[in-house]
Amino acid sequence: MAFPVLVSFAGGASGRWRVERIAPLRGDSLALVRRLEIVEGREAQPAASAVWVLRGATGHERYVTRTEHQALAERQAPLGRPHATRAALIPVRKSEAWWDLSQDERRAIFEERTRHIGIGLEYLPRIARRLLHCRELGEPFDFLTWFEFGADDVAAFDELVARLRGTEEWRYVEREVDIRLTREPP
Amino acid sequence: MAFPVLVSFAGGASGRWRVERIAPLRGDSLALVRRLEIVEGREAQPAASAVWVLRGATGHERYVTRTEHQALAERQAPLGRPHATRAALIPVRKSEAWWDLSQDERRAIFEERTRHIGIGLEYLPRIARRLLHCRELGEPFDFLTWFEFGADDVAAFDELVARLRGTEEWRYVEREVDIRLTREPP
Repeated sequence: MAFPVLVSFAGGASGRWRVERIAPLRGDSLALVRRLEIVEGREAQPAASAVWVLRGATGHERYVTRTEHQALAERQAPLGRPHATRAALIPVRKSEAWWDLSQDERRAIFEERTRHIGIGLEYLPRIARRLLHCRELGEPFDFLTWFEFGADDVAAFDELVARLRGTEEWRYVEREVDIRLTREPP
Repeated sequence: MAFPVLVSFAGGASGRWRVERIAPLRGDSLALVRRLEIVEGREAQPAASAVWVLRGATGHERYVTRTEHQALAERQAPLGRPHATRAALIPVRKSEAWWDLSQDERRAIFEERTRHIGIGLEYLPRIARRLLHCRELGEPFDFLTWFEFGADDVAAFDELVARLRGTEEWRYVEREVDIRLTREPP
């Protein structure tokens, strides 16, 4: 794990990814935009014309054990694969009730009862994923998750997020927006 | 746990706390300053004359179980007690080796082997404490811990930090500065 990297997702008129759909699942949506630009680093600035910018930092694992880490590391895929022309950006905010739980209680809900890691593993390496943390940054969301996959894996991705949304962990989600994107093949 | 609060510690020529000593324990020190100002909130700005500013966010507990949380909650003291005219600000950065560990490994070192919570409990309520997280903020440290205590508890505080510095957890500390402060009684 390198030092945390700040990643900014800027919705506006420019950017490599075309926005196909912005669906508010819980709480307020985000303004509809045509394109999404992704920039990395604290010095980098998204286009000034951006309508909204969501920022998050990469970081260490919060709930994963060493055994689970190994299983994930063996199967996970990198971002930027040529065939991965579909993506999703899913910003989530959890409730105060979640953050009031102690670490052992959050872990029990996250994996022992929800099987968040176990469910995710079933979809690797088809679906590549990057998790950004933003609760400490004063952002409107607690997490941003970015997913990339091929056109053939859209149904699998829909299944993955539907399964997670039915879990005990998701009862603590108070805001969630599901943004779907496409890009031209390289 | 309310929404994270951003706290800025500004070393310079102004502020309620007088700096008595800045000791670099590992890695680089911080520039010597005479006073420390503490401001809360993302809009609040420390004095423009500040020589350095360290920022951190309050946040949820990372390693504490519910049982430990209850034990801490029963004993811990608030900041700002009139007799607490002594303080310490201890910024710490841990190594990449620490952050590469999985959650279960960090927890085992933190409490099962180091007894970080158990040692801290012995000094409550004499020593009040506030932990700020800053790794995700792009700051030079990972944590800032602020302690307040009375003049009669200086020796106890020195003992507390000496005990922690001898633990397995502290082998992962690669930068630590120990800043001691005093203020006038109210």
